[in-house]
Amino acid sequence: MNVSSNTVPLRLGMVGGGEGAFIGGVHRFAARLDGHFDLVAGALSSDTQRSLSSGLALGLAADRCYASFSEMAVAEAKRDDGIQVVAIVTPNHLHFAAAKAFLEQGIHVICDKPLTSNLEDAYALAKVARNSDSLFVLSHNYTAYPMVRQAREMVQKGDLGSIRLVQVEYAQDWLTEKVEASGAKQAVWRTDPKQSGKGGAIGDIGTHAFNLANFISGMVPKDLLADLDSFVEGRLVDDNAHILMRYAEGAKGMIWASQVAPGHENDLKIRIYGDKGGLEWQQTDPNKLWHSPLNENRQLITRGGHGQGDAAARVTRTPAGHPEGYLEAFATIYVEAAQAIRSKEAGESVDDLLCPTVGDGLLGMRFIVACIESSGQGAVWTKI
Amino acid sequence: MNVSSNTVPLRLGMVGGGEGAFIGGVHRFAARLDGHFDLVAGALSSDTQRSLSSGLALGLAADRCYASFSEMAVAEAKRDDGIQVVAIVTPNHLHFAAAKAFLEQGIHVICDKPLTSNLEDAYALAKVARNSDSLFVLSHNYTAYPMVRQAREMVQKGDLGSIRLVQVEYAQDWLTEKVEASGAKQAVWRTDPKQSGKGGAIGDIGTHAFNLANFISGMVPKDLLADLDSFVEGRLVDDNAHILMRYAEGAKGMIWASQVAPGHENDLKIRIYGDKGGLEWQQTDPNKLWHSPLNENRQLITRGGHGQGDAAARVTRTPAGHPEGYLEAFATIYVEAAQAIRSKEAGESVDDLLCPTVGDGLLGMRFIVACIESSGQGAVWTKI
Amino acid sequence: MNVSSNTVPLRLGMVGGGEGAFIGGVHRFAARLDGHFDLVAGALSSDTQRSLSSGLALGLAADRCYASFSEMAVAEAKRDDGIQVVAIVTPNHLHFAAAKAFLEQGIHVICDKPLTSNLEDAYALAKVARNSDSLFVLSHNYTAYPMVRQAREMVQKGDLGSIRLVQVEYAQDWLTEKVEASGAKQAVWRTDPKQSGKGGAIGDIGTHAFNLANFISGMVPKDLLADLDSFVEGRLVDDNAHILMRYAEGAKGMIWASQVAPGHENDLKIRIYGDKGGLEWQQTDPNKLWHSPLNENRQLITRGGHGQGDAAARVTRTPAGHPEGYLEAFATIYVEAAQAIRSKEAGESVDDLLCPTVGDGLLGMRFIVACIESSGQGAVWTKI
Amino acid sequence: MNVSSNTVPLRLGMVGGGEGAFIGGVHRFAARLDGHFDLVAGALSSDTQRSLSSGLALGLAADRCYASFSEMAVAEAKRDDGIQVVAIVTPNHLHFAAAKAFLEQGIHVICDKPLTSNLEDAYALAKVARNSDSLFVLSHNYTAYPMVRQAREMVQKGDLGSIRLVQVEYAQDWLTEKVEASGAKQAVWRTDPKQSGKGGAIGDIGTHAFNLANFISGMVPKDLLADLDSFVEGRLVDDNAHILMRYAEGAKGMIWASQVAPGHENDLKIRIYGDKGGLEWQQTDPNKLWHSPLNENRQLITRGGHGQGDAAARVTRTPAGHPEGYLEAFATIYVEAAQAIRSKEAGESVDDLLCPTVGDGLLGMRFIVACIESSGQGAVWTKI
Repeated sequence: MNVSSNTVPLRLGMVGGGEGAFIGGVHRFAARLDGHFDLVAGALSSDTQRSLSSGLALGLAADRCYASFSEMAVAEAKRDDGIQVVAIVTPNHLHFAAAKAFLEQGIHVICDKPLTSNLEDAYALAKVARNSDSLFVLSHNYTAYPMVRQAREMVQKGDLGSIRLVQVEYAQDWLTEKVEASGAKQAVWRTDPKQSGKGGAIGDIGTHAFNLANFISGMVPKDLLADLDSFVEGRLVDDNAHILMRYAEGAKGMIWASQVAPGHENDLKIRIYGDKGGLEWQQTDPNKLWHSPLNENRQLITRGGHGQGDAAARVTRTPAGHPEGYLEAFATIYVEAAQAIRSKEAGESVDDLLCPTVGDGLLGMRFIVACIESSGQGAVWTKI
Repeated sequence: MNVSSNTVPLRLGMVGGGEGAFIGGVHRFAARLDGHFDLVAGALSSDTQRSLSSGLALGLAADRCYASFSEMAVAEAKRDDGIQVVAIVTPNHLHFAAAKAFLEQGIHVICDKPLTSNLEDAYALAKVARNSDSLFVLSHNYTAYPMVRQAREMVQKGDLGSIRLVQVEYAQDWLTEKVEASGAKQAVWRTDPKQSGKGGAIGDIGTHAFNLANFISGMVPKDLLADLDSFVEGRLVDDNAHILMRYAEGAKGMIWASQVAPGHENDLKIRIYGDKGGLEWQQTDPNKLWHSPLNENRQLITRGGHGQGDAAARVTRTPAGHPEGYLEAFATIYVEAAQAIRSKEAGESVDDLLCPTVGDGLLGMRFIVACIESSGQGAVWTKI
Repeated sequence: MNVSSNTVPLRLGMVGGGEGAFIGGVHRFAARLDGHFDLVAGALSSDTQRSLSSGLALGLAADRCYASFSEMAVAEAKRDDGIQVVAIVTPNHLHFAAAKAFLEQGIHVICDKPLTSNLEDAYALAKVARNSDSLFVLSHNYTAYPMVRQAREMVQKGDLGSIRLVQVEYAQDWLTEKVEASGAKQAVWRTDPKQSGKGGAIGDIGTHAFNLANFISGMVPKDLLADLDSFVEGRLVDDNAHILMRYAEGAKGMIWASQVAPGHENDLKIRIYGDKGGLEWQQTDPNKLWHSPLNENRQLITRGGHGQGDAAARVTRTPAGHPEGYLEAFATIYVEAAQAIRSKEAGESVDDLLCPTVGDGLLGMRFIVACIESSGQGAVWTKI
Repeated sequence: MNVSSNTVPLRLGMVGGGEGAFIGGVHRFAARLDGHFDLVAGALSSDTQRSLSSGLALGLAADRCYASFSEMAVAEAKRDDGIQVVAIVTPNHLHFAAAKAFLEQGIHVICDKPLTSNLEDAYALAKVARNSDSLFVLSHNYTAYPMVRQAREMVQKGDLGSIRLVQVEYAQDWLTEKVEASGAKQAVWRTDPKQSGKGGAIGDIGTHAFNLANFISGMVPKDLLADLDSFVEGRLVDDNAHILMRYAEGAKGMIWASQVAPGHENDLKIRIYGDKGGLEWQQTDPNKLWHSPLNENRQLITRGGHGQGDAAARVTRTPAGHPEGYLEAFATIYVEAAQAIRSKEAGESVDDLLCPTVGDGLLGMRFIVACIESSGQGAVWTKI
């Protein structure tokens, strides 16, 4: 995966991601790695002074460090050298307004997940995005790992036969105690329904698990049943989710998403089984994919290795045995966004866009809402 | 774990376990390993001729190879050198009548799980067992692994704090195809409701998962919700179970039991999380127990190693690094049964019996019934 | 692997293995597991009183608890019901005299490794054994793991092509500190050249590594170079060995044997590479064998699984996913010894004896001597 | 690890790394990830046309695509906006002349390893570099993994006590067959003594293993013994190396470096043991470091996790559980080079430079030469 020939980097802006943020830095690494983007403007904080200091620290010109995304959208749209694309990395409740502001100015958007903080915003944003000529990309980064692409390709090719089971888990431990009470920035907004929406663990990590299951299996469940808990006393959102799923195709699934499981740093794992074989992948060991063809030895497919197919090869940067990680997968979202933007600007079709878009985001929001509804009624079966 | 001083082995009989059987051989290995039992009689098959030939092949005297368990119970009870204990290793539907026959003759019983093939038999057997002076032991062998004992002890000592989550899975792949159609003996009876009862995977392996969760956590769920499937067309019992659990103490749990998950030979795994730490154990790597104390490095506790406590040490035969396996754990059930029988015959208390007994068996049957009821009603919450 | 049809167990005696011993208990577990042996006599300690008390504790008749192996050999040979086979589980320096005493009485011998404590005794014992009508079996137990048999079979079948590399390591940590100074029985005799011979780690575990390499590869090195150390101050034997090997066939090898490597409980691992593939096996996870066919995905062969061949199947007791361990492998040595003894007594050939015998033991002693010579001269190349 | 505040990227040139190259692309990813460098000039191939086309494809101006490094060094030194630093990523035999050319023009150098293709060049380059005001950085990238830094820090702090053993292996399989015969570019030059020097596997990967051992242990062996092989018929350089090492401090070590070990993609692994504990790290699972404190449970230290110390934290980009890989570690070499260049240009000391420099490169060349000498004389002990 190399920079396409003789291209000028796209001009990138960023909303959110100032000092103390986590995901903003990740987006910047991802944007830089393959050389497709230059960060040239930002509304990095809602605090004017911090937005300026954060921007200067990142090498932005002072006059392109904006106090608000709305000001930035307007100002950049007027410049000849204005940004072509913006990364939105704020807490969830700001996604909608920010994305809308840029899309309306004809600026492409790469937005962090989940799509919004409530379903109404999600539908509204989906409408805006679909009516826009600009591209909307959602950073469900886990779909971009080469071995995830491999898994999807194998399912599509029928290597597993007819899919029966989709078992996903996403376990973390960083919210085992009430760390939001001590002011940890990442915890504070993620456990505040006003900023993150009604979903806690299901929004923050459950949507990743759900999205990944859909991406690999090629199916979306029709019904789910969710038993949500807030194990930490006084916490306002769920920190553990037990979810059952049913697919129209007859398959069944389970999701376990937890932020109170000691020993799990960031353990996203998916297993999928059909009548001809099974697959297993986990994010903390991402260069490996276990394949279990029925009645044969288990096999280890490796990124860059002999069993790797085309889909994985397209997003692989280093040879086998030279591990790629989280930032590389995230960067692939940026590469594919860049490719799509260039295709779009060249008037070519972007129908085969692999990176997630507003439809995935809307589905994720419907997943969150369905989980909350199901659990609120005592954990009953609910349509997604 | 050595033979107690100067003891004469107990005289053992066996019902079931003739040629072609699986679990009968396991019970015999287990009975032999520590020298506490001598197999001296058997009704190894319901076929008279096969019972004789199987018995002779095992070195039994011809006159102690019986055509039926009822004949055997009566005949052995009359002998001065008659069996003191019998192992019942038949298909499930025969457990009740066989166990009853021996208990009524004052002969101790070691019975394979699940307890019976229906709840009525289970209650009846429980009544017989509780009214008997003889001991009834159920071979939930997975509870006897040293690192399972370690896990239970750590929970009891409070090392995990207050328990929040119990995640269990028991996955196999041997029923992915309709092997019962080709006459494989193990598959035939296990998928025949008349022999195994209404539960398929939930009875055969789900009960192990459920029992193990109870054993380690020290808790029994009050409600469950089960979504059962028979993925293989024409199969008469479930081959996959997705189960959610709720405990009176506020904890939640998940069980996944499957016999159609390619790549899984016999993967029983349990993870348990409290507000102070987590534990993880899996049966295919049984000499290790992962301990994750909150906010510290993960640690690997090993059988025989520096972190091993008393409960594990009591059932450990070899030094650290010399792996023990399935037969050793199964044999520990026999050792503890032998110790309990000797205590009982010496008039001592057996209240601290660690190996599972009729109460565990009854609970397992209630679990099976609750799963079937829940699933039958569309997967709704059901009392156990 | 079941007891052969209708057989009477062989009468077994034991020399060594009284209270406080380690390997004696292992031999007894191994002898019991498959029902081929009854322990009926013992000279379990050189201390008369302890020999009696140890024997009684194991259920021996008082008149068959002997004060010395020489007395026992003579007395048992005279009895109609005398032992047919003896297990010698003493410290190394006693192996020769004990084995000789029993072989001269026509009693078969199962002897712990290494063969003797010096090369002179080894040659003498080899001569006695070869001139005897009785069988001599050496308990190099690691060769009896099913996946080790599988590896050997694959090498023989040419699955790896022409062998180029044999990489073996056997690392432990229990002698990292000077535990022999505090009187730990196992450490005391193993670090005392008078009892164990001149080799420390190379004798105790290096011989296992060497034997395993020969067993699987089907080759014996012609030259070696050893750099031995006694890292613990004042220790009289080596506690770490770095060894290079050269084979006549052109292959090369490495052995690392250490008893001062913190974190290693009993980590014996072998990897072998040819021009068509590689294999990897480790004793602490013994039910798995990694196979790496050149330019293909790595595969996991499991005991009892789909890729298992005949050689492994013959020594497998439980289905795939039901882990077997150290005692099962050790017991296989006893089963094969029993089979050989019965063949021999039936006048049949025992030329295809798989379990190690006096030739392997003599080779092991020559290995120890070559290592000590090589290291003594500054770590130079030495013929084995 | 973020871009330092408000800095302008350094202007970077590259020698080698045109179409078909491997390591050049890696250097470019590494230079881009953290935003410290802009690639603005190149002599990417010795073929003029390919140099131009490769440069244009990377977005270089046509007039800064040079036909030779000597032309480039002179031309760039004359420009006001000339490169400040050059990355040399050619086959080994060109390192010396290229590095000399740039250093003599006052341009900093980041050079791929090994330092040169022969010892004479190495000494000459060391002299040039030490007499230069410019910085010379060698890309021994494996030293920059956070958990490698953690290991080094723990050794320095005495967590392992006195070091006794250093066990290193670096195994690959890509040269198992004679792929150089089919023209594979990477294989052709690496197996050609004229381009790579006399060392094959020992130069290409053995030097990494040796360097890593020195970096973590803080010691350099005084003597070594090497048994080198070219297992593939007709190969002109070694493809397997068995090496023993002795340290002045009394420790011992082993290196196994192989490019003919089927199943190994790029398996660099180091284990180090002292009298108080052991450590284990492997490159294909780089976010974990096993720590075995003597007589305690083994512990897993993770990048970003609770047990991480300052040295690792300084080079960590993402939170625990978000795996970093090969490119991140390589990029850290570039970050530290950028920091050193800026310190140097600011007149500050760069004595605490962590990334490897010419001294490490010279040592690596002496290692290669010593291995070849030792092996040439039959594998005898040789001074490094």
